[in-house]
This record gives sequence, C-alpha cells and structure tokens, in this order.
Amino acid sequence: MRKYTEMTREERLEEYAAVKAAYEGQKACGLKLDMSRGKPGREQLDLVTDMANVLLQPEDFVSDGIDSRNYGNVEGLPAARRLFADILGCRPEQCFVGGSASLQLMYDAIARAYTYGALHSERPWSKLDTVRWICPAPGYDRHFKISQSFGMEMIAVPMTPDGPDMDRVEELVKDPAVKGMWNVPKYSNPEGVVYSDETIRRLASMQPAAPDFMLMWDNAYCVHEFDAPFRPFDDILSLCEQYGNGDMIYEFASTSKITFPGAGVSVMATSEANLAYLKPIINVQIISYDKVNQLRHVKYLQDREHTLALMRRHAEILRPKFRAVLDALDREIAPLEIAEYRRPVGGYFVSLNAMPGTAKRTLQLCKEAGVTMTGAGATYPYGVDPNDTNIRIAPSLPPVEELEQAVAIFCNCLKLSALEKLGL
Amino acid sequence: MRKYTEMTREERLEEYAAVKAAYEGQKACGLKLDMSRGKPGREQLDLVTDMANVLLQPEDFVSDGIDSRNYGNVEGLPAARRLFADILGCRPEQCFVGGSASLQLMYDAIARAYTYGALHSERPWSKLDTVRWICPAPGYDRHFKISQSFGMEMIAVPMTPDGPDMDRVEELVKDPAVKGMWNVPKYSNPEGVVYSDETIRRLASMQPAAPDFMLMWDNAYCVHEFDAPFRPFDDILSLCEQYGNGDMIYEFASTSKITFPGAGVSVMATSEANLAYLKPIINVQIISYDKVNQLRHVKYLQDREHTLALMRRHAEILRPKFRAVLDALDREIAPLEIAEYRRPVGGYFVSLNAMPGTAKRTLQLCKEAGVTMTGAGATYPYGVDPNDTNIRIAPSLPPVEELEQAVAIFCNCLKLSALEKLGL
Repeated sequence: MRKYTEMTREERLEEYAAVKAAYEGQKACGLKLDMSRGKPGREQLDLVTDMANVLLQPEDFVSDGIDSRNYGNVEGLPAARRLFADILGCRPEQCFVGGSASLQLMYDAIARAYTYGALHSERPWSKLDTVRWICPAPGYDRHFKISQSFGMEMIAVPMTPDGPDMDRVEELVKDPAVKGMWNVPKYSNPEGVVYSDETIRRLASMQPAAPDFMLMWDNAYCVHEFDAPFRPFDDILSLCEQYGNGDMIYEFASTSKITFPGAGVSVMATSEANLAYLKPIINVQIISYDKVNQLRHVKYLQDREHTLALMRRHAEILRPKFRAVLDALDREIAPLEIAEYRRPVGGYFVSLNAMPGTAKRTLQLCKEAGVTMTGAGATYPYGVDPNDTNIRIAPSLPPVEELEQAVAIFCNCLKLSALEKLGL
Repeated sequence: MRKYTEMTREERLEEYAAVKAAYEGQKACGLKLDMSRGKPGREQLDLVTDMANVLLQPEDFVSDGIDSRNYGNVEGLPAARRLFADILGCRPEQCFVGGSASLQLMYDAIARAYTYGALHSERPWSKLDTVRWICPAPGYDRHFKISQSFGMEMIAVPMTPDGPDMDRVEELVKDPAVKGMWNVPKYSNPEGVVYSDETIRRLASMQPAAPDFMLMWDNAYCVHEFDAPFRPFDDILSLCEQYGNGDMIYEFASTSKITFPGAGVSVMATSEANLAYLKPIINVQIISYDKVNQLRHVKYLQDREHTLALMRRHAEILRPKFRAVLDALDREIAPLEIAEYRRPVGGYFVSLNAMPGTAKRTLQLCKEAGVTMTGAGATYPYGVDPNDTNIRIAPSLPPVEELEQAVAIFCNCLKLSALEKLGL
C-alpha cells in the first residue's frame, strides 16, 4: 500500500474508483449501525442483571439501621458513601451519592454556582458579566453543552499525550473570570489519554485568581480498563488539599458503565466544607436520592476489589470490539498516512484525527452508508472543530461482526474523503 | 368539660395545675417520637416490597422494544408515560417521567425558567428585578423553600374550604411580575382541602399578565384517600387548554406515597409545546432518568385501577392512625374551643389552628416531652405564620400505640399554651 500523499493524480483517481466501487457495494447492504454514543452492549447489560436479585425481602433494605425505602439522608446511604470512597480513594465523608446520572450532579453543581454562588464566591455567577471555562479539546461534548447552556465563554486548551497543555492552563487561571475547568483524567473522552502524574500535580497545585474556581474531575472511567491491568490513581481530593486547594476540587463518577447505564448510582466527591455548604441547598431540590438503588449497588458491587473483578469481565466483552476497530485501522488506514489515532487501553472511545478538513465529509459518507457516528465537531467547544479533523468512534454497542462491517465502511469513507481532499 | 374562655382565672389555675401534672408525668416517660414529616410507616413499606420482584431476568427489562437498562428516552419509558397519563387523566405525550422525586422536577422546572426562561418568557427570570409568586397558605414548606431559594417575593393567599381565595388570586395575576403559583389541589398540604370545581375552573381560566406564568399543580395526593372512596378529579391539562392556557400548567405527581418514598418515580405533565421546548434543555442535564425503576413501577402498579386497589390497602394502614389523632382532638380539644381543625379524608396531614400566638409555644412544650412536630411557621412563606397559630400534624410514621401517646402529649401542650395565653 502506498501513502496517498505520494501518489500521482492518476494513481489517486484509480484508487478512488476502486474504493468508491467497494463503498457503493457496502451501501447497497442497507446497514443501520449506531456508533455515536458510548453505550454498553446487550452482553454487558446481561452480565450485571443479577443485580436485580440482591434486594428482595423487607429486611434486605435496611443498612446501618437506615431503611433505604423511606425518605432521608440526602447525602446518600452511609454504605454507598463508603463504597465510592473505597473506589476513589477518598473519605466517605467527602462523598455525596446521588441518582442515576453523574451528568446531573455536574450540571447541578454548576447550576448552584450560578444561582447561589459556590462556597467562596463573592456573588452568584448569574450576576457576573463573563464566566470563562477551560475546555481541554478534544473533549466530552456533554461537558461543553453544560458550559454553553450557562452562557460561559469556553476556552479550548489542546490535549497532549500527558493531558491538557498545562503551560496554557496555568496562564489562563490568572484571569479571575476563569471559573473552572473540565477534566476526564483517566482514559479521557474521546482520546483515552491518562493524565500524567506531573499534569495532575500541576492541576492540584495551581493558584487560580478566582477564589471559587471549580476543578471538575469527571473520573468516568476510573476502573474502566479494557486492554490493560487496572491502573491505580491517586486521590485527587487529598492532593488538592495538600496544596491548600481542598475546596477547588469536585470529583464525579458513576456506575453507568459498571452496572446499568442511566440506572446506576452517581457520586460527587468534594471537601467536607463544600458539602456542608451544599447540603442545605441540595435539600431544597430533593429530599433524598434513590437509596434503594444505592443499597442494591452496595450489595452487588461490595467493594473496590469486587468491582475490579466485575470490570475485568466487562473488559472481556469490550476488548474484541476495540481490537476490531483498531486492527482494521492499523491494516487499512495507518499505511496510507491519512489519519492519526492512538490505541487506548481503557475508556469507551477511539479518537481519530482524519486529514484536516475531511472529518465532516467522512461522517457524511458514513451516514449515507447507514453508519451513524458522533457528529463531527462534537468533541470541541461550541461543536466546532477548527481543523475539521477529529472523529470519535464508539465501538461498545454493536456486536463484533456488525462492528467489523461498520469499520470497513468507515475506512473506505476515510479514504474517499482524503482522496477528494488531495484532489481528483 | 368547660370552654377555657368561659373559665374564671381561678378555674384556669386549677386546670393548669392538673394538666401540668399530667404533662410532667408524660415527660418523665422519655418518649422520642417524630411526627414532623409525611413519612409512610414501616407497614406501608413492607406492603409494597414485592415490587422488588417484578424485574429479574434480562428479558423482563425490555418494554416497547426499549431496553430499560441502557441510556436513552429522556422523556421516560413509553409505558411509564402511559401509566401516569392513566392515573392523571391526561395524554402520555404530555407526561415527562423523571427520577425518584417530584420535588426535583418542580425545582428544576423553576430553575430552568431562571436560567433560560420558560417557553413564552421574554427573558430568563434571573435577569428580572422582581419575580413574585402566589403561595396559598397554610401550604407545603418545601414549595416555599424553593421559591425562597430563587429570591422570589412570596405572596401569601389565604386558603378557604374551597381552595385559595380566588378573588385575591385573580387580582394578583394582573401584575406581570407575578410569575406563578403553588397548588396542592387535592388533599392540600397541610389542610387536606380539595379545591372545588369552581376554584379549579377559575384557576384554569385566569388571564395572568405574565405570558410565562407557571401554574404549579402538585397533585401529590391524587389517589391518596385514607378514609373515603376514591374521589375522581378532572384533567387539569385539558381544562387549561380549553381556556387557551395550555402552556401555563405544570402538573406533578409521584409514587413516593404509593410505593417507596424517595425511591419511586415522578412525573411532570405539561403541554406538548412545553415539553418540545424543555426536552433539549433537560437533555443537557441528564441523558435519561432511571428507566429500570420506571419499568419496575409499570409492572407493579399496572394501571389506574390496580393502583387504586393498592391505595385502599395503604388506607387500611393509615386510617387508624389518622383516627387516633382526630378522635383524641375531638375528645380532648374540641370541647374547650381552643383550636380549630378539619377531619381530612385523604393526604398525609392534619392541620390545626391553635389559639393565635400559641403555636410555637405548643410545639416547644411537645419537644420538651420528646414529640417532634413540623416547626411552627413552616406552613407559611418565609417560615413565618403571622398569627402563630397553624400546626401541622403528620400521623403516618409512628405505630398507633405510639401515636396515641404522642397525641395525648400534644393535647396537653395545646391546653397548657392556651391557658398561659389566657392568663394565669
């Protein structure tokens, strides 16, 4: 296989005709495949459905003397706080256990800063002219949507193999209007980057001008290796505390990709001072989150070790899917030098940078052949990828055979758009 | 028994000494009883714990072709929307089924009006100088807390046996700064008043000056009779629609007092136009609420008829508790003419108006004898009852024997504070 950039125009025309013919054949199959979101597949759901059997008799529902079936304990069941503290390495007193969605906890954390202000805010953010927010990019589209919905000015900071460009971040936080930053520190969405120890230390020790800076730490994939042994991580809460930044950090996690997506349990871990400030405010909104589901998770997941064992079984299901995608890319795309990508070992995505200016076109071609991917640009603030290059692939939902078909189509779409770009 | 107001000072002194002695005896028992919140009792929780057994095998989790265990359907499972539409008498398309707390749906509905504005808002409410809100009083403290937390100017409107004073309400809505109103239309909290047809018609047909007026219709006790046959109610959504007010109405309900308090399912029913406007905004906050719990409820409750049958079993448990309270009041308090109350037949509370200026003192005496009641004033905006008269009694949690002890103490506290007020 020859690199496309080294081909003559004639060779490219020939290649285009061949690839186009193959693509038209694929299109005729009438495939309908969704690779747009990080949804676990059916096999993963079945794997954990035993969870439904752990709470059956009235006496099962009592934990630490608390009847999980009744109102109360807005901060979550003590046993659920202990479980998450075990997983995250922090203290139970720092864990606020919520409902089925960590996204809701993140949105609400920011909404409260807007309406009431955070612990160290001078005034509610809704009373400020400008709120700026640091967005490592490519990043998670739903994070950016939250920032956008509150009218924040989002500042994209490039991702490196070690995490966000810290020189840039340290410069930006000197602006008191910069009120926070999104992070997915382990197996970042979409690139699967793990923040280096040095990056994490620099983040924990930075001195933002805003006294109410929120370091949003979405540890969505904290135990989510699919092709590597579990990689331990330091407790970000105590690290921030060491640097006098204890009230700056808000860590989030959930069991959405451990048990049921959208029917699991979520957590916000932050300083006890923050929780003392936030609890009465949260209590205006809700008497208590679903403690029955919290207890169901406690009984099913038990502790960190037992959770890690379950994650190894998820990995068995996910690994062949990621390999199917990555192997096809290695085989079909790498030699052509028309795209760059990493081989992630955890998380839920493969991130690929196509030839600049071809991401949208590639996904349009995919769609025409029945393969839906995350919209181009979604991984950038405001949905605009300045170089039109980044594509997020979510291999978790389809079965391997369908995935192989889909990625074969995707490879051809990458080739076609690259050839078009190079000129025909 | 003689009325206290007709006693001479000497007779009152004698009575006071006798009641005081009885009270001191009760105090010495060291009782510790919580009648502060409308928490269902243990027997009611056990009654519905079978619900945990309806979803066990992977195939149980699929409904209308949707796997409830995975992400998606932010508006709720179609079957859950149908269930609530059946109970409320509206259309499934008007139902947004949420998480375990209708309070959260109410809070979030108002929070969105603040941050983004409602469908017909000219601007987000956070950008307005003043937002006023109509609060029928006595009312539900948690409603008032929401209003207060957003800095609203709350306007108390007196409750009548037919619902809020409508002459006053119709006058108030002429002010464009009046943006909404709280309502518990059936078995109001705390009085157990059922809004009359005429009140409901006047509410549905009013012409508020604010184009984005929110008629908050907390139908918390829509199927919650404990001492009467089920009382049907008209669909408030179509009634508002008839008067051209379709987008003004937001109805809320939940299964918190049908299945598990705080681990049930909630609903917001509103116009399809409102939902079309709100859905993308809600989707920024959450991918989907817990559909597994929604499906669990659908399978367990089935439909309106089956739900009503379950409510009759709850009534069997609640009736003796309410009767214990009301019978004691009839026996001990009514003849003295020192308090007024109604005999509710549904809902979760008994509301009592003590002699003006004695509510706080009565509850302080209760507390000293180990009986915790809802704080005096809580049933009024800002927690201030201008006449210091209203007391909310929540008889649902304690077993009947404990309740009898508690209400005996309460009666003595009422007597003592009345005698103190009359002068000793």
